[in-house]
Amino acid sequence: MTPAARRDALRALLHAAELDALLVTDLVNVRYLSGFTGSNAALLVPADGERGARLATDGRYTTQAAAEVPDVPVLIERACARALVADAGAAGIRRLGFESGHLTVDAHAALLEVAGDNGEVELRRAPGLVQRLRAVKDETEIEALRTACAAADAALADLIAAGGLRPGRTEREVAADLEQRMRQHGADGPAFDTIIAAGPNSAIPHHRPTDAVLAVGDLVKMDFGALRAGYHSDMTRTVVLGRPSDWQRELYELVAAAQAAGRGALGVGVEVASVDAAARDVITEAGRGAEFSHGLGHGVGLEIHEAPALSATGAGTLASGMAVTVEPGVYLAGRGGVRIEDTLVVRPDGAELLTLTGKELLAL
Amino acid sequence: MTPAARRDALRALLHAAELDALLVTDLVNVRYLSGFTGSNAALLVPADGERGARLATDGRYTTQAAAEVPDVPVLIERACARALVADAGAAGIRRLGFESGHLTVDAHAALLEVAGDNGEVELRRAPGLVQRLRAVKDETEIEALRTACAAADAALADLIAAGGLRPGRTEREVAADLEQRMRQHGADGPAFDTIIAAGPNSAIPHHRPTDAVLAVGDLVKMDFGALRAGYHSDMTRTVVLGRPSDWQRELYELVAAAQAAGRGALGVGVEVASVDAAARDVITEAGRGAEFSHGLGHGVGLEIHEAPALSATGAGTLASGMAVTVEPGVYLAGRGGVRIEDTLVVRPDGAELLTLTGKELLAL
Repeated sequence: MTPAARRDALRALLHAAELDALLVTDLVNVRYLSGFTGSNAALLVPADGERGARLATDGRYTTQAAAEVPDVPVLIERACARALVADAGAAGIRRLGFESGHLTVDAHAALLEVAGDNGEVELRRAPGLVQRLRAVKDETEIEALRTACAAADAALADLIAAGGLRPGRTEREVAADLEQRMRQHGADGPAFDTIIAAGPNSAIPHHRPTDAVLAVGDLVKMDFGALRAGYHSDMTRTVVLGRPSDWQRELYELVAAAQAAGRGALGVGVEVASVDAAARDVITEAGRGAEFSHGLGHGVGLEIHEAPALSATGAGTLASGMAVTVEPGVYLAGRGGVRIEDTLVVRPDGAELLTLTGKELLAL
Repeated sequence: MTPAARRDALRALLHAAELDALLVTDLVNVRYLSGFTGSNAALLVPADGERGARLATDGRYTTQAAAEVPDVPVLIERACARALVADAGAAGIRRLGFESGHLTVDAHAALLEVAGDNGEVELRRAPGLVQRLRAVKDETEIEALRTACAAADAALADLIAAGGLRPGRTEREVAADLEQRMRQHGADGPAFDTIIAAGPNSAIPHHRPTDAVLAVGDLVKMDFGALRAGYHSDMTRTVVLGRPSDWQRELYELVAAAQAAGRGALGVGVEVASVDAAARDVITEAGRGAEFSHGLGHGVGLEIHEAPALSATGAGTLASGMAVTVEPGVYLAGRGGVRIEDTLVVRPDGAELLTLTGKELLAL
């Protein structure tokens, strides 16, 4: 789908929301709708057609904007959003939606001033419209996700084959090694800060790698992903160094069963909360509900966390083409934790796995 | 300076702003004031003392919050800011400042609801208070910046010594190589996406590395930095592959002169706009003012861009302990560009250079 086709899809949402135009200030949404990847920009998308569409960015990006966005006129102006509100006013736009889940209170106040100068422009809260479009991926996006997932899979396979997960290495060394191997497999970089958590640290859901040394008997939790052409992969595997003890094996089997239940619950039209429940019930029934302290998963694409949220309080249903993670975890403070996570795409007949590394308990 | 001492310094600003407390939602500010490094949190800092201070975060971070923040009670609650507004109301806080330069319009609306339930809590815009404190670094922070800058310096020296800047390599390869070398020198990772821009790409101020191949005669612009213990270094060097042509040498000398003028203008009590002017005037007088399309520099610390902004429209003066970049550039579209950037600390007697790599034109 081209950026122009995406702007066209957005127009249907603008009509439904009774907006004359949307002021897009979230840079990820600007990229999605225009192709522009710079760090300062805003985009105006009118409801009535491409005429009047404008990208604003500053002087650092004159060359880049012309190259990346051949089909929308570019305004060079440091205060991008302000310039576009003024432009919208001059073009007769009245009901101007803005991304109220992104724009700050101060930035909004600054726009109100410009809107006031233009008399008729009325700024209306319009959160999440582009996010709603982005939640459903087209095949080009899914291919990008697949490539990113493959880079992460290949890096982990390499790491294990090279004996990179061994007692004596630090969490930090393993993280750097894994990230380097993802690059060798075509990643532009890590999709987020790689989590390597060994021993008791594995009980910290979002641990940052330290100089802690991997030791025999440790659970080693690895949560990592590759960034490729703007798309993020996300996976977690937990292994044991040496022979797993009974509690480790039991914990692993529990999380693996919950993860399988969560994956199995994915489907078109399914409530997101019920996917969370499918996995959570397995853990709760085992008496470990309190130790599964986060949501089951999240959408993934141009951002590492995006719509839809798969959580107990999440609303809405799954649609074909949504890319999501399924990542239950159980964390026993002071002892260790297990999380198992895949990235998948919702398909008419269930879900397609993009992260292909096996999920049997690995004892290294 | 301990987080507790920083909260104490904030209290003076709260009194001056006639606030009973500040609700801190910017995660970098939460980290600065509490030591907490998780990805979901808010902090309440009352003006009248430590009693009533609260950190809120969610269940993923129970263990981490207890370890990182031993001196502030922790509330486990996914909707962190909402929980703290309710808490503030119950504790009798009336004039509650919020970070209006960070909080979104929707998040603010959600807080207004809670404030309404608590009758007397009045949410007041209070932007930039913690940023003002953060702009001035203590010696521990400066040491962290120095270490980060040293990792970047050492990585570039290694890269050059190993012949890593040679015709035939791609921008992407050089970027990955440089980032890997920064890690070998102790960096936790790159401070931002490394920019390697060769030949005509060097004329794009914020170019992302591509598969473009370095060639003899190219200007190669490298803008990169190391992240270390949360602190960011930032430097740019531009080299020529082979013998520099006259226009390349001329361009380089112009930017180097402007950069020296900018560095020379740094000092306690100096207006930030006049530092920008000192460098910009050199370039404007050479008739290249339009090709220097960005501000001169920015503060650097826990964020890669923070206060103060050294730009033509920047307000305020420099204080001892501020860490800033000085990075003029001139970009000739289609031909090439030069940028030279250092990270420095403002000192009573001028400025201390933290990025020590030489700035003579290197012909490799």
